[in-house]
Amino acid sequence: MTVKFKRVALIGLGLIAGSMAHAIRAAGLADEITGYARSAETREIARQIGLCDRVLDSATEAVEGADLVVLAVPVGAMGPVAQEIAPHLASGAILTDVGSVKQAVIEAVGPHVPAGVHFIPGHPLAGTEHSGPRSGFATLFQNRWWLLTPPPDTDPVAVQRLTDLIRAMGANVEIMEPAHHDLVLAVTSHAPHLIAYTMVGVADHLRRVTEGEVIKYSAAGFRDFTRIAASDPTMWRDVFLTNREATLDILGRFTEELFALQRAIRMGDGQQLHDYFTRTRAIRRGIVEAGQDTSAPDFGRSQP
Amino acid sequence: MTVKFKRVALIGLGLIAGSMAHAIRAAGLADEITGYARSAETREIARQIGLCDRVLDSATEAVEGADLVVLAVPVGAMGPVAQEIAPHLASGAILTDVGSVKQAVIEAVGPHVPAGVHFIPGHPLAGTEHSGPRSGFATLFQNRWWLLTPPPDTDPVAVQRLTDLIRAMGANVEIMEPAHHDLVLAVTSHAPHLIAYTMVGVADHLRRVTEGEVIKYSAAGFRDFTRIAASDPTMWRDVFLTNREATLDILGRFTEELFALQRAIRMGDGQQLHDYFTRTRAIRRGIVEAGQDTSAPDFGRSQP
Ligand SMILES: NC(=O)c1ccc[n+]([C@@H]2O[C@H](COP(=O)([O-])OP(=O)(O)OC[C@H]3O[C@@H](n4cnc5c(N)ncnc54)[C@H](OP(=O)(O)O)[C@@H]3O)[C@@H](O)[C@H]2O)c1
Ligand SMILES: NC(=O)c1ccc[n+]([C@@H]2O[C@H](COP(=O)([O-])OP(=O)(O)OC[C@H]3O[C@@H](n4cnc5c(N)ncnc54)[C@H](OP(=O)(O)O)[C@@H]3O)[C@@H](O)[C@H]2O)c1
Repeated sequence: MTVKFKRVALIGLGLIAGSMAHAIRAAGLADEITGYARSAETREIARQIGLCDRVLDSATEAVEGADLVVLAVPVGAMGPVAQEIAPHLASGAILTDVGSVKQAVIEAVGPHVPAGVHFIPGHPLAGTEHSGPRSGFATLFQNRWWLLTPPPDTDPVAVQRLTDLIRAMGANVEIMEPAHHDLVLAVTSHAPHLIAYTMVGVADHLRRVTEGEVIKYSAAGFRDFTRIAASDPTMWRDVFLTNREATLDILGRFTEELFALQRAIRMGDGQQLHDYFTRTRAIRRGIVEAGQDTSAPDFGRSQP
Repeated sequence: MTVKFKRVALIGLGLIAGSMAHAIRAAGLADEITGYARSAETREIARQIGLCDRVLDSATEAVEGADLVVLAVPVGAMGPVAQEIAPHLASGAILTDVGSVKQAVIEAVGPHVPAGVHFIPGHPLAGTEHSGPRSGFATLFQNRWWLLTPPPDTDPVAVQRLTDLIRAMGANVEIMEPAHHDLVLAVTSHAPHLIAYTMVGVADHLRRVTEGEVIKYSAAGFRDFTRIAASDPTMWRDVFLTNREATLDILGRFTEELFALQRAIRMGDGQQLHDYFTRTRAIRRGIVEAGQDTSAPDFGRSQP
């Protein structure tokens, strides 16, 4: 028998919450989904498209009587939102979040969680560059990882219930230490995003190459950076500010290696470049074999 | 009436030459396609899959009687190959190349081109991370740009014939100065590739995060870098060594901006980060509007 919640409350109604709403509905995992977003505009759109069964005008109303509450707002907003809803959480409820950084969320949310509420921080490793209430879709989490970083004393029954829900949405669950999560994500996501933003920024600032040219001739590598660099500015500002140390650590290493490769180019050391590029190929093969990407040419982008 | 060549000779039988063979056949643009690759192994595969009408055991035989000769080897091999085939080129033939760098190819190939042969350097802005004789496909160039950098005194009739062929393969042709080409490509392709290689290398060198973890959790940004960083090591070594100045120029600017953003993270300057990330979004929109990418979530990667 699959898991079933009586009422799932989604706080924040963007890409992740929206995809959860679609996936929970598609698999029949909740009797009712309630939702809240900060702006009247987002709430209105959510109502129009029927994203939730009920969209409330306050977070406190939305969490009333919910046995699962999901914080799906930017990382920097988690603390204030948790503080606001805390007195209204039902005893025995599971409180989770989907924030891309875990230590900072635990520090910000943890102190507000009332006794009897199970706080299980989480992070789905799935996303697109789109955001907002219309951007979600039911299959976003299919075959993706969803990391949970519960404190050691968390009720295993609550962890199991949340795990069952996540699996029923198509994702795979892994338990991780919050600090290790933040380091792994700094490597696989946060540093790459900052680098992509930077490269797109460089292109934007060049005088001798017009923006029109950059856009026109982007197919040869650059466009993959622009996709990454099109992600929501608020979300990413919060990620970098709250996962500061790990991100700066990785960026420091990155800069060192980049200098070494720049030097090899300057010196004409073809052997060093060739060796370096040969090693990176193996990682790519691993990713395709692990099912986290397609080997189709051009990602399987459809030809026009 | 569409353009038709009597004999197209492809020197090098990898991704680009293979895709040209398929596209030329699909559109019926040549009476005959001959081919040559350096290794007996590649020539044997090409024969088995019928990539060309005839695969020859030397480049000189392959170009015999061809009215179009395409150099599709790594940029560093263009000069030696041109020197070898030069005495065997038919008078009136068009000689082109598909190398990712243009000034260095012109310097290396130009001096060998006999009088009566039209040398029109070119570069299709289309590719995948795959290489070799089996990797090509007929639609690779569809709706992509193909830059030509002919010297000012080139016969316009020859340029028109080559342009017609390229258009018939589905690509759009643009004429550009070689130096400007190399700068534009340093921004849109060469620097992004080196950065992607570097980031993948950093992940590979980390002790506290295993390669298995990097691979497993790659979906959140990193995998787009690995695709780029899986490209052929020889091709890219040659690109960086031959487009050294422009690439180092762009990488220098990149490092400067990265330092500024690192500093903003360290100082907690959220406003600066937010402003920067907001500007980069506009570029992405331009690329999608220009038809050089899809706005489908996750590039339209098919869900499993
Ligand atoms: N996008 C990804 O790729 C991805 C992947 C994994 C995890 N995450 C994490 O998931 C969370 C949500 O991201 P998302 O992509 O779903 O974002 P999104 O599409 O931009 O949606 C964010 C939602 O949060 C609401 N919100 C923003 N600031 C708020 C505040 N101060 N107080 C209350 N609500 C606020 C927004 O309301 P309004 O619409 O009214 O502004 C919106 O409904 C973030 O923590 C992010 O780190 C994102
Ligand atoms: N891949 C891209 O994304 C892309 C895009 C635009 C332009 N280009 C340019 O197109 C050219 C070919 O790239 P590709 O992707 O088609 O490469 P590829 O798939 O690796 O094929 C390269 C071909 O060149 C032959 N070759 C290599 N070294 C040679 C040498 N020293 N002498 C003679 N032949 C040699 C190889 O023969 P063997 O198989 O026997 O080794 C192979 O047939 C390069 O100049 C590259 O810069 C590539």
